[in-house]
Amino acid sequence: MAKTNPGRFFEDYKVGDVIRHAVPRTVAEGERALYHALYPARHALYSSDEFAGACGLEGSPLDDLVAFHVVFGKTVPDVSLNAVANLGYAEGRWLKPVYPGDTLRSESEVIGLKENSNGKSGVVYVRTRGLNQMDEVVLEYVRWVMVRKGNLDAPAPETVLPALAKVVAPEDITIPEGLTFEEYDFDLAGEAHRWGDYEIGEKIDHVDGVTIEEAEHMIATRLWQNTAKVHFDATFREDGQRLIYGGHVISMARALSFNGLANAQMIVALNGGAHANPCFSGNTVKAWSEVLDKADTDAPGVGLIRLRLVAVKEGAEPFALKGEDGKYKPEVLLDLDYWAVMPK
Amino acid sequence: MAKTNPGRFFEDYKVGDVIRHAVPRTVAEGERALYHALYPARHALYSSDEFAGACGLEGSPLDDLVAFHVVFGKTVPDVSLNAVANLGYAEGRWLKPVYPGDTLRSESEVIGLKENSNGKSGVVYVRTRGLNQMDEVVLEYVRWVMVRKGNLDAPAPETVLPALAKVVAPEDITIPEGLTFEEYDFDLAGEAHRWGDYEIGEKIDHVDGVTIEEAEHMIATRLWQNTAKVHFDATFREDGQRLIYGGHVISMARALSFNGLANAQMIVALNGGAHANPCFSGNTVKAWSEVLDKADTDAPGVGLIRLRLVAVKEGAEPFALKGEDGKYKPEVLLDLDYWAVMPK
Amino acid sequence: MAKTNPGRFFEDYKVGDVIRHAVPRTVAEGERALYHALYPARHALYSSDEFAGACGLEGSPLDDLVAFHVVFGKTVPDVSLNAVANLGYAEGRWLKPVYPGDTLRSESEVIGLKENSNGKSGVVYVRTRGLNQMDEVVLEYVRWVMVRKGNLDAPAPETVLPALAKVVAPEDITIPEGLTFEEYDFDLAGEAHRWGDYEIGEKIDHVDGVTIEEAEHMIATRLWQNTAKVHFDATFREDGQRLIYGGHVISMARALSFNGLANAQMIVALNGGAHANPCFSGNTVKAWSEVLDKADTDAPGVGLIRLRLVAVKEGAEPFALKGEDGKYKPEVLLDLDYWAVMPK
Repeated sequence: MAKTNPGRFFEDYKVGDVIRHAVPRTVAEGERALYHALYPARHALYSSDEFAGACGLEGSPLDDLVAFHVVFGKTVPDVSLNAVANLGYAEGRWLKPVYPGDTLRSESEVIGLKENSNGKSGVVYVRTRGLNQMDEVVLEYVRWVMVRKGNLDAPAPETVLPALAKVVAPEDITIPEGLTFEEYDFDLAGEAHRWGDYEIGEKIDHVDGVTIEEAEHMIATRLWQNTAKVHFDATFREDGQRLIYGGHVISMARALSFNGLANAQMIVALNGGAHANPCFSGNTVKAWSEVLDKADTDAPGVGLIRLRLVAVKEGAEPFALKGEDGKYKPEVLLDLDYWAVMPK
Repeated sequence: MAKTNPGRFFEDYKVGDVIRHAVPRTVAEGERALYHALYPARHALYSSDEFAGACGLEGSPLDDLVAFHVVFGKTVPDVSLNAVANLGYAEGRWLKPVYPGDTLRSESEVIGLKENSNGKSGVVYVRTRGLNQMDEVVLEYVRWVMVRKGNLDAPAPETVLPALAKVVAPEDITIPEGLTFEEYDFDLAGEAHRWGDYEIGEKIDHVDGVTIEEAEHMIATRLWQNTAKVHFDATFREDGQRLIYGGHVISMARALSFNGLANAQMIVALNGGAHANPCFSGNTVKAWSEVLDKADTDAPGVGLIRLRLVAVKEGAEPFALKGEDGKYKPEVLLDLDYWAVMPK
Repeated sequence: MAKTNPGRFFEDYKVGDVIRHAVPRTVAEGERALYHALYPARHALYSSDEFAGACGLEGSPLDDLVAFHVVFGKTVPDVSLNAVANLGYAEGRWLKPVYPGDTLRSESEVIGLKENSNGKSGVVYVRTRGLNQMDEVVLEYVRWVMVRKGNLDAPAPETVLPALAKVVAPEDITIPEGLTFEEYDFDLAGEAHRWGDYEIGEKIDHVDGVTIEEAEHMIATRLWQNTAKVHFDATFREDGQRLIYGGHVISMARALSFNGLANAQMIVALNGGAHANPCFSGNTVKAWSEVLDKADTDAPGVGLIRLRLVAVKEGAEPFALKGEDGKYKPEVLLDLDYWAVMPK
């Protein structure tokens, strides 16, 4: 009797199924330090208990992307093991900060299925929820992936396509309880520009770059217990390269965006995202952002800013995203669309 | 007056000597996070305070191999500095879980000596104990190493060979106080197979592989304060390679064994082990296991499983261990024999 | 409106200005573990809560160089972004240990300015203070750097050269409150030699070496939130090499000095220092020390020892520092002059 996990194939998913993912994980001071060691993260609210306290929180939470990576990592053995491609994200919402000592687990509900016309694979839509030890949802998002069929004779399921919001509406965003930017210290945050200083359409080159090392992306990816072999085993792909976890590029780009967006303190919603091209060790990652929208909130001093975050590698032209053919330029690694809170 | 540590030579050991090793070490959340960052560790009991609590523990302990590495690392300056070879392990027993905040130190008692017939070296047997801040023994094991003589004219000591158990008997194993698997959550553990599903003689290929990087094995080895220069200094060996600490391979293989043995939650005894061949950066480590024995315990829902854990590198044939000459195949890195607890 | 930080140019500094640096940082167990993972750090007082407690402290502080790196890292965006060279350090004093949970921030006062005769750059002297969450100064030091002018037409400021002590006088050194070495355990510390055993003029070769990896120096440097691109972006310098943060070499050399100076437990003053030559990935760092001076203190059992710590790379001759031309040998990376406390 085989003991190892073969993963799920397309025919193993049914709309309405809820998958309880292994392995729960307690995150604490160590994960916080490692996040700062692996990414040039400097957003003050995630760096200082004092700063976070002055913003009305009980202390400095773990970076919002730590929550994302931990929750995402648990889904890999059940969702991505036989996946051909990670197709998209939508309706991501951060509902509660994660503090040192919290224990996270993940559940995914299958909300859509569509077999491909070739009969060899299909698209699976799941809504994943990350829960803490009080069974509170700290994060949820929709993700869809293309998954191979294990049995090509399995009948195609009824096609169910979920209706997904193109953008999380500002009124659907949860501002962390108690958050206030009324006593915000712009000196300590490292950036004088506030919500009113950013204009829709404005683009910001974040200037700095980081050259990626094998040891670093593997340390990061393991930390989230994402053990997909393509990230770790140099003998697995024919080209002998280890593919870098897309989330590593997200965190690298977000951290680099500090230089110009230091006051975009917390990510509160993920509208969409594409891993445009693969990233490998030796690539030098840089980032630029575009202000897509702004909205107000009821929280004291807190505005919302919607940003496009683009990660590129060496050779990229300034602010170039897609070619005339509508496809991403080969130097573009990531195109992410999110909402963050910013002091007004 | 030389201030640096020259290490002990064979003639410096006397049977009955007890060596108090430097440097005590407080281990906490940071070591826990780093262990998860350096190895693809997913055993739920070491990942989640909630899961460990449901198993009757006060929280999630540090991985049993963290305890081993920390205790072992302290012995290096006193035992292995002039060692030619690490020959074997026996009678390893984990006696108490190590929790964040515990401070560990190590002591070794010399329990055997045998000079080699060439008069240039000899075998030293030590029983090492790891103690916490309450002077409780958390771990003990016997290890024997071949050590150079410093003074070739020193007389050979009387040969003393300790009687060592080939296998730790189940009745000599300590099950952590309070451990129960009666409320065990197999979903969260990530593996449906339980103690009764494993058969003696069964072999399991753990499938996944990890390509080793210099930065990673050095970070791990330093974390255990094992500062043997052969692991760190590329100018030390003639071939310019840094030899990877054998314990790094143990932890890597044990973590990889999650895929097929996710319910072998805690290591409770070490019966023996051989570092069959050296491991270097660039090697891709994979692992397989063989079920050697099973035994019952009085703890609720807790069974014992005795496992052979074999780490191999690229090019290894499935389940191949030794050649016709009785020697380990060149692709075999580690052959470890241990007992773990598993839910019934 | 440009949102990214252009850094300050020489003409932007005025004597008497106080710069409040971003970003405050809470340091905890994670930073402690990472320090031990990145450097072969074994000084017992920074390794064990029990050992530190027996020395009169409330627990094991974070390494004194963690405090230095965190405080220093914050100054980089305001002081070194347009710096051509880091010229020197003086009057460094550690005033209070930093414990897990403390939040550090930095301030720098401009205390000297001197435009270079070429009119293109000038030397800026700053006194930097690191403060904890109670606004207590934990560390202060003077540093001077050569900074480019942004506007070559800006008039030269009045030259102000601060009077700096060549050596911090023993009576100006702060011994941590409560520190006592009366119950000092030399076994656990790993070194039998005490204050009285070291002679002024004595030189110690610390024997061990560490070959530097890109991933490791980047992880370390990011941990201190020092994000200067020269350390991270392989496309930035013409030679394609990432320059290693000088502080990485300081920590590596100090940790290596354990072998021979294990009882030089805490650094309490920094008299001066020079980063003699750049360090790159692949270099193997070794270290030697020279006893420059000794002094007594009123704290029970506590002596002061003044040490020159020299880091070298492969190819260095024993104890060679400068050539006949008075310049540092090309293999010398660091020449540091500090006071440490040592048990009498």
